[in-house]
Parts: sequence; structure tokens; C-alpha cells
Amino acid sequence: MNNTPSRIRASVRALHPYVPGEQPKIPGLVKLNTNENPYPPTPAVRSVLDGLCIDDLRRYPDPDATGVRERLAALHGCDAGNVFVANGSDEALRLCIDAFCEPDGSVGYVEPSYSLYPVLADIRGVERRPVDFWPDLAWRMPRNYAASVFFLTNPNAPTGTLFAKDDVRRFCEDFPGVVVIDEAYADFAGVSCDDLALSLPNVLVCRTLSKAYSLAGLRLGWLVGSAELIGAVTAIKDSYNADRIAQAVACAALDDPEWMRANVARIRATRDRLVADLRGRGWSVTDSATNFLWARPPAGFSAGDVFRALRERAVLVRHWDAPRLRDFLRITVGTDAEVARLLTALDDAASV
Amino acid sequence: MNNTPSRIRASVRALHPYVPGEQPKIPGLVKLNTNENPYPPTPAVRSVLDGLCIDDLRRYPDPDATGVRERLAALHGCDAGNVFVANGSDEALRLCIDAFCEPDGSVGYVEPSYSLYPVLADIRGVERRPVDFWPDLAWRMPRNYAASVFFLTNPNAPTGTLFAKDDVRRFCEDFPGVVVIDEAYADFAGVSCDDLALSLPNVLVCRTLSKAYSLAGLRLGWLVGSAELIGAVTAIKDSYNADRIAQAVACAALDDPEWMRANVARIRATRDRLVADLRGRGWSVTDSATNFLWARPPAGFSAGDVFRALRERAVLVRHWDAPRLRDFLRITVGTDAEVARLLTALDDAASV
Repeated sequence: MNNTPSRIRASVRALHPYVPGEQPKIPGLVKLNTNENPYPPTPAVRSVLDGLCIDDLRRYPDPDATGVRERLAALHGCDAGNVFVANGSDEALRLCIDAFCEPDGSVGYVEPSYSLYPVLADIRGVERRPVDFWPDLAWRMPRNYAASVFFLTNPNAPTGTLFAKDDVRRFCEDFPGVVVIDEAYADFAGVSCDDLALSLPNVLVCRTLSKAYSLAGLRLGWLVGSAELIGAVTAIKDSYNADRIAQAVACAALDDPEWMRANVARIRATRDRLVADLRGRGWSVTDSATNFLWARPPAGFSAGDVFRALRERAVLVRHWDAPRLRDFLRITVGTDAEVARLLTALDDAASV
Repeated sequence: MNNTPSRIRASVRALHPYVPGEQPKIPGLVKLNTNENPYPPTPAVRSVLDGLCIDDLRRYPDPDATGVRERLAALHGCDAGNVFVANGSDEALRLCIDAFCEPDGSVGYVEPSYSLYPVLADIRGVERRPVDFWPDLAWRMPRNYAASVFFLTNPNAPTGTLFAKDDVRRFCEDFPGVVVIDEAYADFAGVSCDDLALSLPNVLVCRTLSKAYSLAGLRLGWLVGSAELIGAVTAIKDSYNADRIAQAVACAALDDPEWMRANVARIRATRDRLVADLRGRGWSVTDSATNFLWARPPAGFSAGDVFRALRERAVLVRHWDAPRLRDFLRITVGTDAEVARLLTALDDAASV
């Protein structure tokens, strides 16, 4: 022990870092814990990699990710100046705090939602201002609520619920700070608030290729909104945040939206069957607008015990051992075969 | 005009963002402006892309970049816990401010050096504490100088000069804050301070695959240092900062150091000939330990005019229109053929 003052920032010393879902290497594992897509990305990705000139990798990438931004602008019906491309949407969320929150500012978010938001606030040492939506997840944003930045996950995670657009719009219109609508799962819901981001000066929508486009391994997210807000985030990003290969692969994925939509349709069909199957077994399952379920086992079964019993049977779902959350499991919707294995494992565990 | 207070953080509104070197699309351009390697990366990169299973891209990458870190640990003779892998060394530099600088802290650096450092300080709204090494770039760190984080570029950019290790060591031993030795060009110098980072508690070394490994397009940098400092940076990074493809390609590049060393040897030989050729034409050229030259045209020629004359002849070098810097050009060492075209263009411009 010594008395040297720490060189590490106090907020970082005190931090409980974000814990990503496990990526274990268990043979034959049914991995339903990180909301990944069970289907591969468009085969055009293979063609892009085949055609990539590796000599070009000695050059820096386009710092403006022009090709990706042009495609995203077409997707959202806006100009490229309304789009920011990020190294995964996590980067975009972090940059929103850096761009819109003073050191004495605050970060708001719904509780429960994405557990990264409070960690991002803690890293910067700014105040957290969560809004409690428990227990029924109904819209209950307080009047006159304020924060520098508010993260609204829609559809929400881990609950899978979709907030009504009218509620979102009214909130955004009244809110003095910046609202970042985190739409990681919007492709599964089939609705977006991108029109709000393109019409209100204080709203950004955050999207990703990780979920519906089957490219979590790539790290490609984006923001849509006013040129003013987009410009602020762009000014403070790492210059070359999206690499050459990621930009090329992202363009290929965005050029094949039919592939993504077909996978989304398959996942939604599997999801609806799984909801019925779980409810038939006495589970309480929240209506989902996403590719995952927020589900509570029947009376007499603890979610933690079910989580462990499934893991022993090589089926991995997500469980947080935290107040209130610990009564639930978050289950990613896999293929029909994976979901069948989940149900078999559940039935097997219940019969022990 | 309206009186709505801005939603954008004051430090961001006031920012003069970092300006990356141009990446123009001029046919036949000799591009000597961003210190890229003129030779391609190891052919093993092609094999990695050929062998990549695109189905795997639907999965998140390894958040710990285990394979890359193990190889880097072997390279530096340390444990994987002494290594942090970044999405380009720019991410690593930024995270050092976030991890080691309180909101009332300060960021130090040599002047002239990498122009990103003051921008990173400005983004966070913390004090800049530059140390003036003009005009002769000799070591003149003041006694009792302090800052939260000090960036020491070694070899330095844009000057190409190497600071003596004894000077660096004495400075690090006395300095109360964290010293980040930015060794982007160390492979060209053939010396590293990684031993200081692994023996002193307050020193990190920052490296990259962008320059010597010909992978600027990939975005892969790293830090080496004590487990305590590395742990602090790791705790605040974006969870999946290095993507699956980048991790795989980086492993291939690190597995073929001979390829990198052969390219470094070729570049050094070309560099030494170019230095002699420029000096023979009356240029003042600083001794370089890197893959670029810091050079001042002969009396009667302005660096800005030479920059423009070269650009008209499809040869692009780097020029900053800023006090003191504006008298110099920074010239990346290309292939022998590119360097020959540079000299031809210079002679042509001088004869007009």
C-alpha cells in the first residue's frame, strides 16, 4: 500500500463497467443471450470480401463514410448531412453524451432499458436521471422532466415493448434536451421515429446493422437527425471510426434490404409461435416488438434456476441478478430448431 | 435567430475539429500526404478474408480481442493483461484522456507534434499544456512540469525526430501524471520504449498497424503498460470496439512480422536516398527516424507555393498553413518510383 494519489480518474475508479452478454465456446450451444440474428447476412457480403483489394488497406478509410451515408440517407429520405456513421451504435450513444452533456449535465433513460446508458453517464461522471416505468412498462414520463440527453429505447430492451409514437412525439416536443431514440430493434417492429428526428431539432434516431441485418460482428451503427446535432457528433468522433472493410460490407448489406426483411419475417413468425408455446406452459410473456422475449417463468420456478438449468442443457439465455430484473429471462428468438431445443430443455428441466 | 440555449456542449461548439489529411480521388496521384505505407499488407490478409465464414458476422466479436492481445503480449514480452486493443490508435489516445484526466485536469504534449492532442483536450474542455520544442526540436522538457496526461510522440510527428531514451526515461520517472508514448512510427526507428511502459507505473506505449504493417484502412491500435492503467482504459471502452474482421486480419498481420520488416527496410533505404536528393537541391531536411520527412524548401521558395505546385502536378504532400509549421512540408516516403515522380515534379516546378 502507498499514498500516491491515483492517476486514474475518480469516476473510472468507481465504475461498474458494462458487462456484455457471454460469448462462450460450448460445442452445440444454442445461443439465445445477446439478441443476435440466427440467420446469416446477405451473401453479397461474401462477394464484397472476395472483391476487396487488400492493397487498398494500406490507405486510410474515407473519414466521412460517404458511400454508407448516401445509402442511409436514401433509406431515411434525407440528406447525407443528416446521417452520422458509427463504429457500432454504442459509439453513437457515447458520442451523444460527449456532444450534448456538459460536465454538470445529466443523462436520462427509462428503467428498465439498455444497461449501457447509466454506465456511459458514470464514465463521464455526470448525473443519472432514470425514469421508472416499472412494473407495467406503460408510458409514464413525468411532466417537466429534464435532462441534457435522454435515451429512449424503442422498441425497449430488455422488455421488447413498443412505445406509442404519439407519446414519443409529445415527449420530444416538450423536452428541453436532446432525445436519442435508440431503435436497435426497430426493423423488427416495422416502425421508426426517423420522421421525428428529421422534423424536430432536438431528436436523433440511432440504428444498427447488428440485429436485423445480421452484422453484430461488423460494428456499424448510425444516427439520423438535424444537421446541427449530426454535425456536433461528427466533429468529435475519431477521424477514421469506420474502417474500409466495414464500410464496404455495410454498403452491400444496405443494398439488399429484401434479405434483411425476409429474415425479420421469419424471426417474427418464430417469435409468435414461441410466445404461444411459453404462455401455454404457464409463462408470463410480454408482447414483443423485437427479436427477443421478456418472460417470467410460472409460479414456483425462479428465473435464475431456469437460467442455470438451461445453461446445463447447452441453451444460453440472458439473466440479470439484479433487483426486479432477476424475476425475468430475456430470450433471443433463434431459428425454429433452436427454439425447439429451448422448449425441450425447459420441459426436461421442469420434469427433474 | 432565436434565443433557445444551444443543446450542444460549449466545448464542442467552440471546437476546431481535427482535420485528417486529404484522401482525394485524382487519377495517377502520387499520394505522399498521410504517411501511409506504399507497400501492401501481408498476403496472409487475403487468405484470412477468403477463409472468413460470413455466417459468423451475425455474432458479436470477442469483446476482449483475445487472439490479438495474445499476439501483442508475445511481441512485447508481457501478459495479455498489459495490452489494450483499440479501433485505431486514435481511440486509444482519446481513452487515455477519459481514463486519466479529471474534468479540471490537463493534457500535455510537445509542440510541434500530432495535431490531434489539443483537439482531444478541447473536446473534453480540459486545459492544454503544450511544451515548446521549437525551433531545433531538442529535448527541453521543463523541470517540475505537470499535467494529468502527457502525450510524447516518439519518433515525433511531423518532425520525424527520435527523442533519446534516457531523456524519455528521466522525464517519465519524474512526471506525476500518465505519460503516453505515441509510437506510431517506432517500427521505422527500430527502437521502442515498451520496456519503460512495462516497468514504470505511469507509462503507456501506443502502437498501430496503420503505418509499418500497411493497415491504415483497418483501424487497429494498441496500448502496452501496467495492468492498472490498461484496466482503467479497458473499463471505459466501447464493449465491442474491434470488429470480427479487424481482429482476424490483425492476427494475420502480427503473424507475419518479416513482411512488415522487409517493407520497413525498403522504405528506410528510399528515405535515405530522398534525404540526400533533397539536400542536394538545397532543401533543409530534418534527420528522420520515420517513413516521412520534415523538409524546408531552399531560400526563395515558400513551402505553400511548393505544395500547390506539386499538387498541380498530381503529387500530394502535407502542408499546414499555421504559424511556424507553414515553412515546412511533411513528405511521406513512397516507393522509389513515387519518390522519382516527386523529384521530377519539384524540378519541373522550380524551372517554371
